[in-house]
Amino acid sequence: MRYNVIKDANNIINKSPYLVSNPEAYKNKWSSLFENDKPIHLELGMGRGEFIINMAKSYPNINFIGLELYDSQMVKAVDRLRGQNLPNLKLINADAKDIDKFFGKEIDTIYLTFSEPWPKKQDEKKRFTHESYLRLYDKIFKKHKHVILKTDNKTLFQYSLESLSKYWYTFEVVSLDLHHDERKIPNIMTDFEKNYDKTEKRPIYYLDARFED
Amino acid sequence: MRYNVIKDANNIINKSPYLVSNPEAYKNKWSSLFENDKPIHLELGMGRGEFIINMAKSYPNINFIGLELYDSQMVKAVDRLRGQNLPNLKLINADAKDIDKFFGKEIDTIYLTFSEPWPKKQDEKKRFTHESYLRLYDKIFKKHKHVILKTDNKTLFQYSLESLSKYWYTFEVVSLDLHHDERKIPNIMTDFEKNYDKTEKRPIYYLDARFED
Repeated sequence: MRYNVIKDANNIINKSPYLVSNPEAYKNKWSSLFENDKPIHLELGMGRGEFIINMAKSYPNINFIGLELYDSQMVKAVDRLRGQNLPNLKLINADAKDIDKFFGKEIDTIYLTFSEPWPKKQDEKKRFTHESYLRLYDKIFKKHKHVILKTDNKTLFQYSLESLSKYWYTFEVVSLDLHHDERKIPNIMTDFEKNYDKTEKRPIYYLDARFED
Repeated sequence: MRYNVIKDANNIINKSPYLVSNPEAYKNKWSSLFENDKPIHLELGMGRGEFIINMAKSYPNINFIGLELYDSQMVKAVDRLRGQNLPNLKLINADAKDIDKFFGKEIDTIYLTFSEPWPKKQDEKKRFTHESYLRLYDKIFKKHKHVILKTDNKTLFQYSLESLSKYWYTFEVVSLDLHHDERKIPNIMTDFEKNYDKTEKRPIYYLDARFED
């Protein structure tokens, strides 16, 4: 199904029961929206939502929120969710730059999966692991900081290791080839990832980064 | 030239003008041995010494010390140095575990290049980036800590990123493919490294890790 008309996509997204159309209203109140005190995990740039939807299915004791700016991507997540009942999943159609307007100190983990690498030096600030984003995450982490990053982009991964380490994160797990790591790191795969090994000879990189006071 | 007789290797090493046979005697006095106050860089496990010898040639304003436990390796460095005049290079034939007996707080940079990966879990403590070694390095770093690591071993590199980050090092440069890195990281190559790209399809990993108070 294709939505070439942006207005259509927007209408479809807005009708989804998973969409929280006014996330500002739930700042510091997401637990009450979920009607429980389970940990809240947030994915920034969820794209078509495959990862976050599969996570929500796999981990019913965690609440998940998927954020995506682009309607053209979001509408595919909404399609995928039709007829499913996942009380532990919510979606937000907004810019990641605004997360401090939507959340108080109530997020346990942030996922950055296959984020836009923004390879040009002048776009460095747009990378989700740029210091300005790390500062933003500080505003919404509940107690400890916990970022999980997965990417096939070497340059973004190198940059993220440098940037997160300089921001005093420590690395619980670094994998330079997630799909063939002997440690058997738990991994929810998107269709893209499932097909990756067949089509690509490059590895997928994985990072579990934490900061605990 | 081969030295199958260990005694021969040992004799040859001991005759080398580069060898400091009593390193304990120079604890806190290496600058006077070098007869200048230039920074002192130390390589642990220098093997046949290619890296440290080339560094000494390339950077006359830095004093270099190469440490190697095995006579069979060390003797090749000594052979290589015959007829050369490098006043900024010294060699130590000893175990890296004893460096705090040889040095006070007088080392600026430690190089770990193509170190033994010790892949088995029970040998973890022997890895040069194990916490016990990082604690040892603290005793000999002059002011700031500075470790430069280069390896073709993925598991050792992953481990080192985790271990160094947990020990609060920050990563100035991480390269997941040193020989093809767009940033043109300065790199002194050993013969092994020069031939590496022709024979291996795996990358060489590089890390510049620092801790500055």
